[in-house]
Amino acid sequence: MANVKKSDLLKEPVEHFDITKHNTISMVEAMSKMAFSARDLARASDIYDRMLADKDCSVILCLAGSLFSAGLKKIVFDMVQNNMVDAIVSTGANIVDQDFFESLGFKHYKGTKWVDDHALRSARVDRIYDTFIDEDELGVSDNTLSEIAGSLKPKPYSSREIIEEMGKYLATGKNCKVKDSITLAAFKKQVPIFVPAFSDCSAGFGFLHHQWHNPESHASIDSAKDFRELVRVKLEAKETGLLMIGGGVPKNFAQDITVGAEMLGLDTNMHKYAIQITVADERDGALSGSTLREACSWGKVDTVWEQMVYSEATLALPILASYAYHKGSWKKRAARKYNALLNDEKAPIPAAKY
Amino acid sequence: MANVKKSDLLKEPVEHFDITKHNTISMVEAMSKMAFSARDLARASDIYDRMLADKDCSVILCLAGSLFSAGLKKIVFDMVQNNMVDAIVSTGANIVDQDFFESLGFKHYKGTKWVDDHALRSARVDRIYDTFIDEDELGVSDNTLSEIAGSLKPKPYSSREIIEEMGKYLATGKNCKVKDSITLAAFKKQVPIFVPAFSDCSAGFGFLHHQWHNPESHASIDSAKDFRELVRVKLEAKETGLLMIGGGVPKNFAQDITVGAEMLGLDTNMHKYAIQITVADERDGALSGSTLREACSWGKVDTVWEQMVYSEATLALPILASYAYHKGSWKKRAARKYNALLNDEKAPIPAAKY
Amino acid sequence: MANVKKSDLLKEPVEHFDITKHNTISMVEAMSKMAFSARDLARASDIYDRMLADKDCSVILCLAGSLFSAGLKKIVFDMVQNNMVDAIVSTGANIVDQDFFESLGFKHYKGTKWVDDHALRSARVDRIYDTFIDEDELGVSDNTLSEIAGSLKPKPYSSREIIEEMGKYLATGKNCKVKDSITLAAFKKQVPIFVPAFSDCSAGFGFLHHQWHNPESHASIDSAKDFRELVRVKLEAKETGLLMIGGGVPKNFAQDITVGAEMLGLDTNMHKYAIQITVADERDGALSGSTLREACSWGKVDTVWEQMVYSEATLALPILASYAYHKGSWKKRAARKYNALLNDEKAPIPAAKY
Amino acid sequence: MANVKKSDLLKEPVEHFDITKHNTISMVEAMSKMAFSARDLARASDIYDRMLADKDCSVILCLAGSLFSAGLKKIVFDMVQNNMVDAIVSTGANIVDQDFFESLGFKHYKGTKWVDDHALRSARVDRIYDTFIDEDELGVSDNTLSEIAGSLKPKPYSSREIIEEMGKYLATGKNCKVKDSITLAAFKKQVPIFVPAFSDCSAGFGFLHHQWHNPESHASIDSAKDFRELVRVKLEAKETGLLMIGGGVPKNFAQDITVGAEMLGLDTNMHKYAIQITVADERDGALSGSTLREACSWGKVDTVWEQMVYSEATLALPILASYAYHKGSWKKRAARKYNALLNDEKAPIPAAKY
Repeated sequence: MANVKKSDLLKEPVEHFDITKHNTISMVEAMSKMAFSARDLARASDIYDRMLADKDCSVILCLAGSLFSAGLKKIVFDMVQNNMVDAIVSTGANIVDQDFFESLGFKHYKGTKWVDDHALRSARVDRIYDTFIDEDELGVSDNTLSEIAGSLKPKPYSSREIIEEMGKYLATGKNCKVKDSITLAAFKKQVPIFVPAFSDCSAGFGFLHHQWHNPESHASIDSAKDFRELVRVKLEAKETGLLMIGGGVPKNFAQDITVGAEMLGLDTNMHKYAIQITVADERDGALSGSTLREACSWGKVDTVWEQMVYSEATLALPILASYAYHKGSWKKRAARKYNALLNDEKAPIPAAKY
Repeated sequence: MANVKKSDLLKEPVEHFDITKHNTISMVEAMSKMAFSARDLARASDIYDRMLADKDCSVILCLAGSLFSAGLKKIVFDMVQNNMVDAIVSTGANIVDQDFFESLGFKHYKGTKWVDDHALRSARVDRIYDTFIDEDELGVSDNTLSEIAGSLKPKPYSSREIIEEMGKYLATGKNCKVKDSITLAAFKKQVPIFVPAFSDCSAGFGFLHHQWHNPESHASIDSAKDFRELVRVKLEAKETGLLMIGGGVPKNFAQDITVGAEMLGLDTNMHKYAIQITVADERDGALSGSTLREACSWGKVDTVWEQMVYSEATLALPILASYAYHKGSWKKRAARKYNALLNDEKAPIPAAKY
Repeated sequence: MANVKKSDLLKEPVEHFDITKHNTISMVEAMSKMAFSARDLARASDIYDRMLADKDCSVILCLAGSLFSAGLKKIVFDMVQNNMVDAIVSTGANIVDQDFFESLGFKHYKGTKWVDDHALRSARVDRIYDTFIDEDELGVSDNTLSEIAGSLKPKPYSSREIIEEMGKYLATGKNCKVKDSITLAAFKKQVPIFVPAFSDCSAGFGFLHHQWHNPESHASIDSAKDFRELVRVKLEAKETGLLMIGGGVPKNFAQDITVGAEMLGLDTNMHKYAIQITVADERDGALSGSTLREACSWGKVDTVWEQMVYSEATLALPILASYAYHKGSWKKRAARKYNALLNDEKAPIPAAKY
Repeated sequence: MANVKKSDLLKEPVEHFDITKHNTISMVEAMSKMAFSARDLARASDIYDRMLADKDCSVILCLAGSLFSAGLKKIVFDMVQNNMVDAIVSTGANIVDQDFFESLGFKHYKGTKWVDDHALRSARVDRIYDTFIDEDELGVSDNTLSEIAGSLKPKPYSSREIIEEMGKYLATGKNCKVKDSITLAAFKKQVPIFVPAFSDCSAGFGFLHHQWHNPESHASIDSAKDFRELVRVKLEAKETGLLMIGGGVPKNFAQDITVGAEMLGLDTNMHKYAIQITVADERDGALSGSTLREACSWGKVDTVWEQMVYSEATLALPILASYAYHKGSWKKRAARKYNALLNDEKAPIPAAKY
């Protein structure tokens, strides 16, 4: 395939799973009577529904891995639209390189892993396992991020603030080309999105470009502010539930806020609910695969309502999310609008004891 | 074990593997004639030695997972001391929660995973798989970080700059209690250490505390500056080799600098050498387990000298690092002292074409 | 839980997933437009349906792992009943310890892995990950197998012949207590079931008992005869498709029949279709995780219609099997009744060339 | 690589690791003070040495996966030669396709997984992950097995008996071309080798050929006899230790003998020591990855001296076996010569109570 052309590689776009069209309640109920991952997934689905039914609970969704390039974007979009999630902590890949990228009108394409990566390199096509992306379209996304960075007043920002700016950008004119933009939906619903490793994605390229050309005076990314803000959210929410897809920084960061609050002497609870969908193994000692029971030793997660599901996300998340969607407990939930709180400079900040 | 006491749990400290005392050359040579992981590890060891023998190559070490709590700290210390590494990209856990923590005189302890995590919680002991930590000692570390943050002029910093400050702190008086502090050694050898997700560790707690108490004027963490600085390093180094332990943000971040330079129109090469030791599976599409050949499609890594090794790090790294240490190619290498370059405000910065 | 009682542990029986009640066609079609495991599962589902629609193709189902204790038994029962499978190669655990065991009226119970295995030992409860079994009921199964062995004329048998005897036993009087016995259904439908490692299960205990008490004259298990019989099936079938759940001996054994036929100089084709659902990793070089492309180098499997799915079976098999069931291509298939062929002593056996 | 030739592919033979030349004692002692797999491997090494030092303990080595093609053959050879193992339970791949195959003078070759398997097929080269084999040489091995089968008196045999015949064949004239044949060494040392799924390898092809051509009167493989014989070994040995490389049938079969003895009412102990080296995950519920604690619920393995090591075998086995070899506890062990017992038709057989 030495001389393969981009147009031959980018033919069939990935399409996103639509939970509103698939009711998995009876399947999940059947799985609850089985064993292994099926039963675990059924229990996790039930716990997610409990989070939504618990009036005191705010739901924090954690996203790691290449989820949206794989067709899981509309699921999260529907969760945002329907008050099924109150805050998001994600890798930059999902929010910036994939959701914002698609919001600009670009696509991910069905590819294959049986391929010569040098030929892809020549064709300017990037690969994520079995998925292809137009490298030049990614460049457009990078440049848009650079523009947005350039439009900001030079000072430190949380990633959440910048992602809100990205939402504002998409809300402007015809900038947004799709109906299922999470960045835009979260902007409108005032759902905060945190990307604690924000330079580790297309936004990093945008800010690199912005700062390189403006070495003296520029916007910067303050991940400590992210942490401060998410602790604020935790304090405001009485109880919290974590729905974690994959591990990595989002899992670590979201779990850590209870410890952060404790360090400040601020009264708060461990996360009351916790679900993780992952194939990571606990035996290498890394956080991505560490059990939620281990997190209890750290004071992060309570163990009554915790469940790990051993599955790649494209199989488990559609089933879990469809279940919760059709159970409908979210219908009685109000939007938390945490962005409003975080943006309100006059809102009182709880005083630290230590 | 309902009423277990901390003193019963924290008895046997983890001790660090010493590559200077174990010569694995003949073992690695024997493994090069086998198959599977043994042969892969032998080839990776050879590639690392080639990086060190290649006068034009700078070595970037990427660290993810809980490596230093597991006894791998002195290996990286010896690599820093002996010019076997020119820059480090790491998770915060390794550098802050584990190396800096031990630099203050604290220890990690041999524990077990067969344990009641609620009992650990009551005893104020935190668990990493089979390793125990004194939660109160971690608190001392958090507070020290808060002090260091408070001592900084209020402006954005790269994580590298703050870690240099941590090194300076350890170099002061008797603050450093151990002989194998990586943070201190890197400070002295002017080896930059980047932690792109810097709020995702004890430093996050330190900066949270600092900023919470100083909401109007405070030091902040700018991970875009990290990116700018590592691109500078890449431009200064003719060639680069990546030695990656685990995946996560460090792998992604370090690979991305070639794309970042390309985006600015700055002439640079893909990473010439790349090694990754990991147990992550490629089949979930996440970056941690993605093959180095996939990275070639993105223009990140060349494929002539790349090798993935499927192993948990505590088995593979001692063998690989001992091999390279005793081969001795590092003896002819000069220290790159990239911190000097990055700290020199008058150093000319390559002009971007785009 | 030192003094836990059996009756406290064995309360909630595992129930089996019913593919006739869940139509996953639209879900699978949606998954075919995604990436990663979802797309792989959709393609595998399509390939299975193609096998069933291909009039020249016989379907060989391979079963490894603890599938039936986990609620997957009725799926295979329905496949047997509806001509969706023409031969089965399995571990003994599935067919003897689990299907035959349940046929005698016993159950598997929902348990947990968070348990003290010494306490289970004392309570005479056996554990499979999160599933509990009454050890005394297993003993009844072992003894029944010993009885059946004792009823046989002393000579070597293929496992298939013995499993047919087990089916005959269940067909007698009220011996079979359930409606979804695979052993009984296969007996009635004349679908051969092979367990090449037949001593590695409750049947092993049964034959151990039988032979120990009858050292001079006894029935024996000839796995070479299994191989001969499955090669006969391969020769009779023009084309074959493998649907493999897990790896192990069943995968190896079923793949090997093409090589066996070749060795005898008998004209046959590689397996035309091949699907494997597994979480095994290819990187340890073991056959369970080896790719189906690797199998092509051995002349076992063609690569046009092959698909591996990276998933634990309780998630993937219900979706795949429901899809194929509701697509209905099996409705035009005739039962192959290979047992009739294999039992017919006068049936001509193809002459070997070598 | 459409027209690649066999001679281009089969150039560099795999060479076997020699534990007598690498002393890993100090490395293992250092690893015992670390965490994760390194500490687990150190503890497993210590347990294996304890088995050898325990005068009442017989060691049963279980082998699954493609170990000998990967360079681990001479390790097992040295273990047999030096009374470090008293019985072996293996897959056929290791003993027949790889050890016996190499005993005939053939080799395994260093290959690569980055290859077109169709081209290998055309070149008559078979692939195991990154290893190549001459398909025609495998054919010679199959035919030799067929000859050996043809030389046997027509009756059922345990795999152990047939493997002894293979050893006798190698002991004849110049049939054995190598110095490190396990089959030959075990024959001479009277160490029984069991392959419970004996038809699932080159022996299967040999017996297929033999029986196909002699349908009326032929030697057959009785795996129930294997089970009987290994229970005999268990009864004769006071205590037993399992050293398991990989999982599969060998793990299951060897663990089951305590249950088999119990079923006959014969007094025996659980396995006192148990080690498993594997990368299999416990979360799919299959036996290969099931914990040794789970085995305790079944009455198979005691939990005082059990250790699982999460590693691919080519990394862990050389370290563990070198440690035990150089510790030298085996020097005081006598050869158990269980073949002599099993072959003695007049040896009294313990009477079953049930």
